[in-house]
Amino acid sequence: MPEFAKRLSYMEQTAEVLRGLFGAMSDPSIISFGGGAPASVALPVEQLHEIAREVLRRERRGVEALQYGPVPGVRQLREIVADKLLKPNGVDADPDDILIVNGGLETMNLLCQVFISPGDVILCESPSFVHCVEIFEMFEAKCIGCEMDEHGIVIEDVEAKIQKHHPKMVYVIPTFQNPTGKTLPAERRRALAELGSKYDVIILEDDPYRDLRYSGAPLLPIQSYDRTGHTVMAGSFSKIFSPGSRLGYVHARKEIIAHLTDAKIATNSHTAMLPQILCAEFFARGYFEQHLKNLCAVHRERRDAMMAALEKYMPAGTKWVYPDGGLFSWVELPGGIDATELLKEARAHGVAYIAGEGFFADKRGEGKNCMRISFGNVTSEQIETGMQRLGKLIASKL
Amino acid sequence: MPEFAKRLSYMEQTAEVLRGLFGAMSDPSIISFGGGAPASVALPVEQLHEIAREVLRRERRGVEALQYGPVPGVRQLREIVADKLLKPNGVDADPDDILIVNGGLETMNLLCQVFISPGDVILCESPSFVHCVEIFEMFEAKCIGCEMDEHGIVIEDVEAKIQKHHPKMVYVIPTFQNPTGKTLPAERRRALAELGSKYDVIILEDDPYRDLRYSGAPLLPIQSYDRTGHTVMAGSFSKIFSPGSRLGYVHARKEIIAHLTDAKIATNSHTAMLPQILCAEFFARGYFEQHLKNLCAVHRERRDAMMAALEKYMPAGTKWVYPDGGLFSWVELPGGIDATELLKEARAHGVAYIAGEGFFADKRGEGKNCMRISFGNVTSEQIETGMQRLGKLIASKL
Repeated sequence: MPEFAKRLSYMEQTAEVLRGLFGAMSDPSIISFGGGAPASVALPVEQLHEIAREVLRRERRGVEALQYGPVPGVRQLREIVADKLLKPNGVDADPDDILIVNGGLETMNLLCQVFISPGDVILCESPSFVHCVEIFEMFEAKCIGCEMDEHGIVIEDVEAKIQKHHPKMVYVIPTFQNPTGKTLPAERRRALAELGSKYDVIILEDDPYRDLRYSGAPLLPIQSYDRTGHTVMAGSFSKIFSPGSRLGYVHARKEIIAHLTDAKIATNSHTAMLPQILCAEFFARGYFEQHLKNLCAVHRERRDAMMAALEKYMPAGTKWVYPDGGLFSWVELPGGIDATELLKEARAHGVAYIAGEGFFADKRGEGKNCMRISFGNVTSEQIETGMQRLGKLIASKL
Repeated sequence: MPEFAKRLSYMEQTAEVLRGLFGAMSDPSIISFGGGAPASVALPVEQLHEIAREVLRRERRGVEALQYGPVPGVRQLREIVADKLLKPNGVDADPDDILIVNGGLETMNLLCQVFISPGDVILCESPSFVHCVEIFEMFEAKCIGCEMDEHGIVIEDVEAKIQKHHPKMVYVIPTFQNPTGKTLPAERRRALAELGSKYDVIILEDDPYRDLRYSGAPLLPIQSYDRTGHTVMAGSFSKIFSPGSRLGYVHARKEIIAHLTDAKIATNSHTAMLPQILCAEFFARGYFEQHLKNLCAVHRERRDAMMAALEKYMPAGTKWVYPDGGLFSWVELPGGIDATELLKEARAHGVAYIAGEGFFADKRGEGKNCMRISFGNVTSEQIETGMQRLGKLIASKL
């Protein structure tokens, strides 16, 4: 066997975490707070079925759906991104500056192809989304975590680390962050945009949960404060439409989009047409607005059930984040309990979560007493039962 | 703007060729022999519409189609690849050694992530498929072209270049090659598999056109001769099912598939579920066999029309390949005509092709008198008209 590329050794440790994460999602005997999926019951199956029945005919869009398509993505869908998802959020977007990608995460991959050489530094939240950390590691970037407080990433620490490490990018999930559920306030969003301009650094804004808000007032994205084109917006249809359709988009200045498009050609030519067309029709028919209301209602109930269950079952000294939206909360266990070690026992008791330490890019052993819990694809009843099991197990360790 | 990664400068020249290629496909006023699309009229639109109507309900596979799916791909589809596409061709395949990818080309990208470090050598046919050359360049591989004769790549030259350059991979399109339409005979397929074993080199077999055979006897793939697991099979549903669905597969030994799966997670998590499910149902219902017959009948007629038109309209001294299948022929012009320069004039006369020089990875100015012509998505009438225009233009230059 010829030698593997060096990049594989950089990603090995994180790859192991991710394999565990994907593996945990598929055991039906366990109540899993582990995955990042939205509620299956709230997926727009009926609307999609109706649209497929009507538009997949030869005389409508059947040939378009099956034949090769444009590299940047279906024009109609790029217009929808600009008009319905970005402009109402204060981002002055042109469809020509939007590239449709194969799931929101593909943006991180393509952006690394365009900007990252081995050894380049990427600053990220600490903890950050482990899946993106793996992408950065595959490109042999050096990921350095920045401090977070209860409102998210701490701007002073970001600025100090920009000055010290000269990063290519700052990667942030500003809204209902993965894994913590925290949301960055408006003044910090503006400050991040200004840091990008001041230090000539890309601010990579990963914002897939933005529309899943159950309480509190909406905030403008970081990109809405950007005056110099240093912010790259990585958006996704996974939470607001369908994860399995693997649809995301990136909005950035023309020069960056042009290079991302070349990298897209050299990655997989273009995003699948069938999901793009069905998604575009879904928005064009005005189904999105009602669907989003339903989606938020289902997830709000689950968020509330999770908060109530944490209150009810977690032993004293446990801390957790109250998320205003999204799919996650972040739990800190008391008494030096190791969440990674506890997981095996938890699974034997029929409940699972993701241990926290994998989410720290620096790999200095932080977050050992932490767990990410998702309330997205579990019913309120499952949350009640699962958290009771988990609380009992944790209490037994104190 | 922060500095772009160095890899972008390696791919710039090829990226320009590809942008032109994709651009040429979209001008409706021109009869284009440029693209690589199969006949729109032969796409299985009616079957897909029927399947979508039946299976995209909540009580059937609607939720599966919209929710996150397994990283390796839908199990049913991997079984179909093993049982219907590989085993009948002499490849003893296990569904666990198959990864479903976002179009056949994604395999080249993922395989580079796994094996290629900057400066590594990849041997390829000369000319080779320009799109893959761009992928190799994005990974800063050094592409070295091997000689071809009328039967395809010359084994003695491959062996000499393996000894001289110690490549990581040999990239070949053995059946109805892109761009030449040539097919590698059985003894050379066996010899390539043996070179992989002998020199510990990956033989990357890109075989998307295999089933589109219009004349001659079928040949076993290179992988069927492999006894040591050095061959990686890059398959595709683009030509036999639907290009826009972006579905391909890779079959290789377990160790390689494991690393490819990690790279897939770090590229786009998994391939879109909707196309996978519709494609799997298409095969499960037995529609493939009849569809393939129809597909070959349509393309055979176009191949024959193209061969007749070349005979009728090309001036003396022009040479071309008679392809037994696939979508392409390769034309060598007489009298030192520069096909790249001629293209502008050709477009003004309402006909397009792809100039040959872009297909040579070595970039030494070879193939200037060559063109790739596709008969896939043009009718016999368009072939007649377009080739008449082209022949007249070429004759006027002699």
